[in-house]
Amino acid sequence: MDNLYAGRMEALREMMRSRGWDAVLITGSDPHDSEYPAERWKQVAWFSGFTGEAGDLVVTLDHAGLWTDTRYFIQAEQQLSGTGIALHKTRVPGQVLIPEWLAGQGGDGEFILATDGLCVSARTVDGIRSSFLAAGRVCQVVSVPNLADFLWKDRPDIPQTPVSLVDPGESRWQRLDRVRSFLRENGCNHILISTLDDIAWTLNIRASDIEYNPLAISYLIISEDEARWFILKGQVEDGQTEAAFDAVGGDGVELCDYADIEMAVRELQGEVAADGSRLNAHLWDILQDAGIPVHDLPSPTALWKAVKNPTEIEGMRRAHLLDGVAVERFLYWLEKSMENERRISEWDAALRLQRYREEEPEFLYESFETISAYGPGAALPHYVTPRTDAPLLAPHGLYLCDSGGQYRFGTTDITRTVPLGPCSPLEQEDYTLVIKGHIALARATFPAGTPGCRLDALARAPLWAHYRNFGHGTGHGVGWFLGVHEGPQDIRQNLNPQALLPGMVVSDEPGIYREGLHGVRHENLLLCREAGHNDFGAWLRFETLTLCHYDTSILVTELLDRDEVIWLNEYNRRVFETLAPLLPAEVAAWLEEKTQPVVL
Amino acid sequence: MDNLYAGRMEALREMMRSRGWDAVLITGSDPHDSEYPAERWKQVAWFSGFTGEAGDLVVTLDHAGLWTDTRYFIQAEQQLSGTGIALHKTRVPGQVLIPEWLAGQGGDGEFILATDGLCVSARTVDGIRSSFLAAGRVCQVVSVPNLADFLWKDRPDIPQTPVSLVDPGESRWQRLDRVRSFLRENGCNHILISTLDDIAWTLNIRASDIEYNPLAISYLIISEDEARWFILKGQVEDGQTEAAFDAVGGDGVELCDYADIEMAVRELQGEVAADGSRLNAHLWDILQDAGIPVHDLPSPTALWKAVKNPTEIEGMRRAHLLDGVAVERFLYWLEKSMENERRISEWDAALRLQRYREEEPEFLYESFETISAYGPGAALPHYVTPRTDAPLLAPHGLYLCDSGGQYRFGTTDITRTVPLGPCSPLEQEDYTLVIKGHIALARATFPAGTPGCRLDALARAPLWAHYRNFGHGTGHGVGWFLGVHEGPQDIRQNLNPQALLPGMVVSDEPGIYREGLHGVRHENLLLCREAGHNDFGAWLRFETLTLCHYDTSILVTELLDRDEVIWLNEYNRRVFETLAPLLPAEVAAWLEEKTQPVVL
Repeated sequence: MDNLYAGRMEALREMMRSRGWDAVLITGSDPHDSEYPAERWKQVAWFSGFTGEAGDLVVTLDHAGLWTDTRYFIQAEQQLSGTGIALHKTRVPGQVLIPEWLAGQGGDGEFILATDGLCVSARTVDGIRSSFLAAGRVCQVVSVPNLADFLWKDRPDIPQTPVSLVDPGESRWQRLDRVRSFLRENGCNHILISTLDDIAWTLNIRASDIEYNPLAISYLIISEDEARWFILKGQVEDGQTEAAFDAVGGDGVELCDYADIEMAVRELQGEVAADGSRLNAHLWDILQDAGIPVHDLPSPTALWKAVKNPTEIEGMRRAHLLDGVAVERFLYWLEKSMENERRISEWDAALRLQRYREEEPEFLYESFETISAYGPGAALPHYVTPRTDAPLLAPHGLYLCDSGGQYRFGTTDITRTVPLGPCSPLEQEDYTLVIKGHIALARATFPAGTPGCRLDALARAPLWAHYRNFGHGTGHGVGWFLGVHEGPQDIRQNLNPQALLPGMVVSDEPGIYREGLHGVRHENLLLCREAGHNDFGAWLRFETLTLCHYDTSILVTELLDRDEVIWLNEYNRRVFETLAPLLPAEVAAWLEEKTQPVVL
Repeated sequence: MDNLYAGRMEALREMMRSRGWDAVLITGSDPHDSEYPAERWKQVAWFSGFTGEAGDLVVTLDHAGLWTDTRYFIQAEQQLSGTGIALHKTRVPGQVLIPEWLAGQGGDGEFILATDGLCVSARTVDGIRSSFLAAGRVCQVVSVPNLADFLWKDRPDIPQTPVSLVDPGESRWQRLDRVRSFLRENGCNHILISTLDDIAWTLNIRASDIEYNPLAISYLIISEDEARWFILKGQVEDGQTEAAFDAVGGDGVELCDYADIEMAVRELQGEVAADGSRLNAHLWDILQDAGIPVHDLPSPTALWKAVKNPTEIEGMRRAHLLDGVAVERFLYWLEKSMENERRISEWDAALRLQRYREEEPEFLYESFETISAYGPGAALPHYVTPRTDAPLLAPHGLYLCDSGGQYRFGTTDITRTVPLGPCSPLEQEDYTLVIKGHIALARATFPAGTPGCRLDALARAPLWAHYRNFGHGTGHGVGWFLGVHEGPQDIRQNLNPQALLPGMVVSDEPGIYREGLHGVRHENLLLCREAGHNDFGAWLRFETLTLCHYDTSILVTELLDRDEVIWLNEYNRRVFETLAPLLPAEVAAWLEEKTQPVVL
């Protein structure tokens, strides 16, 4: 392993020396600023062995470093061991981010930084140049599109999976029309959209070019009277895709080759809207070099797709109904298996949950890799369940399972922490405090216009009161049969000013993690809804979409308030009443037991 | 009245016509960006009759408008009535702020805006110019220092009140030294400080140039080896001031004429630190025109003075002890007077409270104008208690009193809402919900690094749960024998990223206001303190500085949680035990009754 990565590093440095590069930046992203890149763009993993979802590599002639955040420190330390690549920690006090670190490297004259301009945003490149200027130096950023190709000989191609259509209750034509209104309002002739979920949303298409994400790797240019979708990478040989392409073409969208985007961008006439924080530097530079006026704006689709319409809302409810059935069947199986002293590993459990979901015909595939973690494994929020020799579940302590599904009409994401038997007082306390935090957010009413960052403390305060906290965000937006992580809203410590709007879906997932001991996380998805208005203004609240009971057996009732117990009992009862008709009789009977009200 | 302001408006327009000005901006500020200007700089009131603390006037040849925020709408509507000046509302949806409004005014060619460059910040002027550029127009901002002088013939002079010294446990020399370290760290040769509380803090001086604020109207330039204080406006004739000047001079600070600041700024050699968001445009332009390199930075003193040292903290505790005695004596007098059916107006009550404070030798003067409001008056957070014919207090409903004091070792600010007899169910409910919000914040533990905006919802959530809210901030910083409003921290809806630090003092003042009915506000001052650290990080909490009981007689106990009752009982008990030895016997006995524990 070590020699593999050492060899690749040396080959890269040879390239650097021959081309006079002072450093190379290898990002973990793709040309579309996707959170999860397709195999082809997992160049950080290819060069370093680090497989975490957030990480960038910087290589100089005498140093190699991986920059990643708190979620991945433990994983990075393990995977980088022996590679000679140092871990640079981000999202910690005293962090030194890549631009600042590069600008602090020795040397006279101009600093030459090479990077694949397709895999880094224009804004990021600007930031690096600015850091150098602030340090009184100059950095020349040399973009080498597909830089990894020089060394990665068996690099996978760009995926091209079958394309299908979806019906979210708003037609493709209506969505294109909304984009065209945006163009007129902003004095633009074209918009260049490079983010895959925005493209899928606008065209009402789905594919599966990225694992867990129903997206098609492509670009979209929408102009006043025309639109072009740069998607074709090879022959189209399936009827479903042909039909989808026909439908899209029928709305005036021309199908083009993915490789033709550069030329198309170069030849744009008029003013172009593009998001400099997301568009790759390569295409951004083409616009600049061609002297095309660019309006640096987020695509309006980012906000539009976050606000689900009534059809999409109904779809999300249905997806959660089906998903709830699967998860409850799994939890029943889990409890019975433990009772029967079966030998179950974290991996076995994950597979069984997947199987229950697959028994639902409308389930397509998972929305992310299931985190199935017993005991200490659950203390790592981004624990990766081993496929072989996974830890066994024991009949005591806590088992945590974070999973989700893609349905043609919705995306789910749910975490349950299950007592497998006797639990320590600390486990019980942590479990109870996290429930309190979860409930505080789920039952919140708040004024219209409130951004998620102002609600974040509601989920944390019950934990803070006991000097506990969690290092990840409280909630992320979720797409409609799109990415399980979707903006622009969130509920976390960052002061994101995006207000929560009716129709948005967010997760509510506080937790407490104790390294080497256990982890607790309770997660439901919430739908933001209007809640009337009065003299004090307009109000919003959340409707819990997730349908799955919360185990009450280890709750420390002395820590609970009356209102929390009322919420919990009502929620569990709603879960039972809604799911029972869809569950096998023995599971329904079991669920009725599990959802007996807590009494203070 | 109407003819007075109409006459002044016409005189202004005559001036505009003769000079070719398209508009005049009259700000409500002074050359030091003070929140409360001295009489001389109350030009908005002189031109319009509006006496609210936040308001700017814009006058064109055919329109005159006052821009102010929600706190003052009712007052503005009353005071502007008959003047021909329109109310432009800010801090509301659809607000059109002055720069945007000006840029939307008709006309070809350059737009000439005149303003007193001494009374507007450089940043504000930039903002106006930018708004015009964004609209494809050009605005020439003509600065006329002391513009009001042309029309306001009996305009007051710049105050010069006696100067005294304070001892905050850190010497003047140490503070100057800290500023000089800042200069070195930022590559600056000088810093120009124009904000009065920062100057007072740095030089350990106080004066009383502004009502309620112990400040000296002056400028301060600190350089590596020297410092100059531009304060002299006339002869100094009192011994205390001479002694203070001697002490300041002894630390190498040269006393200069206030009027000499322009020349001094013009002649600065080297690089200058100045805060463009606070320094007046007149002096900023002098720096720019002289080609002096300016580092646009906030003064480091802004943060330093917000973090109270141990001596200042002890001083704040002492101030609150003395203040608590006065307020409790007042509340006792109030209750007894109502029992005895005495005829008391809001103004009588405010005077009596002031008298109790004055009976404390170390009390200096009030920290702001007392808000003494019965019934409907309390529904206006910035109610101004009338001096004549003030409403009488009746033996039912709620009386609200918001007051504070300046002591040589601290500043106080407290609000109590007092039931004067039977209260409506709504009054009782509002009273109880506001207590819950107040307690949630007062008893919060939170991670080090948390900004106030993330705690704001803790104080609001108990109100939100009942669809109630308040339109003002939850908390503001408080100075150490300085301004009762002090930054940079706050606890409000704005996403201010300043973390709360140990040693900071903030108010905790949620409320519920029902126009025409009643208002409730409960306010204490909190001191941020360290609360240990553990595996989850470093923790902070609040110590309540204010010592005054909360009336429990109308609490709706069904709405209270066990933890809230525990906090309230402990707080009231601490108040009794701490103040009883300092109170007259009958007041102590009364207080013991009032602080009997609430039982759920």
